[in-house]
Amino acid sequence: MLHVPEQVTIREVGPRDGLQNEPAEVPTEDKIAWIDSLSETGLGYIEISSFVHPKWIPQLKDAREVAKAIKRHPDITYAALVPNKKGLEAAIETGVDEVSVFMSASETHNRKNINKSIEETYPVLEEVVKEAKQAGKTVRGYVSTVFGCPYEGDVEPDKVFQVGNRLFEMGIDELSLGDTIGVADPKQVDSFLANMDGRIPFSKAAMHFHNTSGMALANVLVSLERGVTIFDGALGGLGGCPYADGASGNLATDDLVHMLERMGIDTGIHKGKLTDAAAFIQEKIGIELPSHQMQMFNRKGG
Amino acid sequence: MLHVPEQVTIREVGPRDGLQNEPAEVPTEDKIAWIDSLSETGLGYIEISSFVHPKWIPQLKDAREVAKAIKRHPDITYAALVPNKKGLEAAIETGVDEVSVFMSASETHNRKNINKSIEETYPVLEEVVKEAKQAGKTVRGYVSTVFGCPYEGDVEPDKVFQVGNRLFEMGIDELSLGDTIGVADPKQVDSFLANMDGRIPFSKAAMHFHNTSGMALANVLVSLERGVTIFDGALGGLGGCPYADGASGNLATDDLVHMLERMGIDTGIHKGKLTDAAAFIQEKIGIELPSHQMQMFNRKGG
Repeated sequence: MLHVPEQVTIREVGPRDGLQNEPAEVPTEDKIAWIDSLSETGLGYIEISSFVHPKWIPQLKDAREVAKAIKRHPDITYAALVPNKKGLEAAIETGVDEVSVFMSASETHNRKNINKSIEETYPVLEEVVKEAKQAGKTVRGYVSTVFGCPYEGDVEPDKVFQVGNRLFEMGIDELSLGDTIGVADPKQVDSFLANMDGRIPFSKAAMHFHNTSGMALANVLVSLERGVTIFDGALGGLGGCPYADGASGNLATDDLVHMLERMGIDTGIHKGKLTDAAAFIQEKIGIELPSHQMQMFNRKGG
Repeated sequence: MLHVPEQVTIREVGPRDGLQNEPAEVPTEDKIAWIDSLSETGLGYIEISSFVHPKWIPQLKDAREVAKAIKRHPDITYAALVPNKKGLEAAIETGVDEVSVFMSASETHNRKNINKSIEETYPVLEEVVKEAKQAGKTVRGYVSTVFGCPYEGDVEPDKVFQVGNRLFEMGIDELSLGDTIGVADPKQVDSFLANMDGRIPFSKAAMHFHNTSGMALANVLVSLERGVTIFDGALGGLGGCPYADGASGNLATDDLVHMLERMGIDTGIHKGKLTDAAAFIQEKIGIELPSHQMQMFNRKGG
């Protein structure tokens, strides 16, 4: 028999990791309405935006307005990405529950993305994590390029564990391990997780897959078999639209929930309400979402 | 460590199961050229067409012309679907190497598809298998709706094993187990295969998945873990175009090969030549193929 957990926690990253990779700029009031509809689905965690400079991600330039206007459900953690102290201040001011910091496991990707070496990144994040904790926030750490780097190719699992442990030493509450470019295969994920055992706490590790090569759900499956219980998803596969150039394809929350529920694994999520929320944002961005669930929904005439 | 086979055999069903579900009618000479290009990829098996009445599947009305004109590679088995004695005669006359017979594990689907009850179907197939073997052909048996029926819902695994065993008693050489409507999830597949152990020979069983819900590769993965070594695929995901109404989405051969090769599992297939063959048929049917490999290919500008 397949040994998999009975319950899985899903972190919805669509409003941040999804929208930041869509060419369409969604009006602020639509983002707010969408996040409010996500709050009705049973999700316990929504990453609502990113407090980065609008020069880098113009799609999320309204992070403050969004964070201030959304309806807060007491059982839901509302999180936002922060690159530095300035971003953290905005996050604290707007009252998000959790902040996310990020860096790469590969030197070149980290440098291209953050404009610093890995060593230079640590003190910046250390300060952010420290102040976030002092402000009573929980903190999530994202590590990118865990299974491969667009510039360097293979990434050593040891390097990932090293970065992850530094982040835990700083005080992060959860680590999200990202297959940024969607290259991981199930054998690689299985071997990575076998390696991780005893080095990174599984109860605080989330897998963040992209479906670029169609292997995301197969990678979820081996992760489940290894005891992972936290997964990131972007509703509808937002951010990986097949019409956008170089799209990297987030794992779709709705496809993930569908598979887990079919397997008898409880996610606490209401599928019908999830579809409503996906249909809403699909209409706003004006292109068909790539998830299989939404493709079926669209074929039935929506 | 993940226990999976070192080698996997792929049966290419695109020219039959793919094209019969595409709205476009591909000119005969293009089908021939496409099958000839498939013969260069390293595939050991190509199902080239179906000798059913053109009233049912007009897309494949040129089965005879195709079977006669393709270049035969001595290491490749060229197969065709036959519904009855008349179809078998055409298959023998045109010199295909293998014939495929088909039926459903669910009564209603069998009746809607073949216009006979399951019991009434057996003698028809028995005669076809017998005569095919007498003519020196190998025979493949397809069982549909193995993991669910569009009319009846759940299908009992025992019913599938019963149908499968009747087909083996008739003399089929291989059984293809089809998730016709693409509903199977990994837990269901795992439990089905655990049940199958000792009842159907794994060395003669192929899994035939559809990617309707995006779980096909995850289902392949659990099948590999259970020791399955034969999988059906349709190049580019042909037959499951997202633009076609009610498309059921064949597992894409190119996505399957990509995952297997990444996992270090030998398929004997040349990925570059597979892409060439996919690009060829994509141009002929005039729509973008839905496989992840082809989506990436198309984004790069083909």
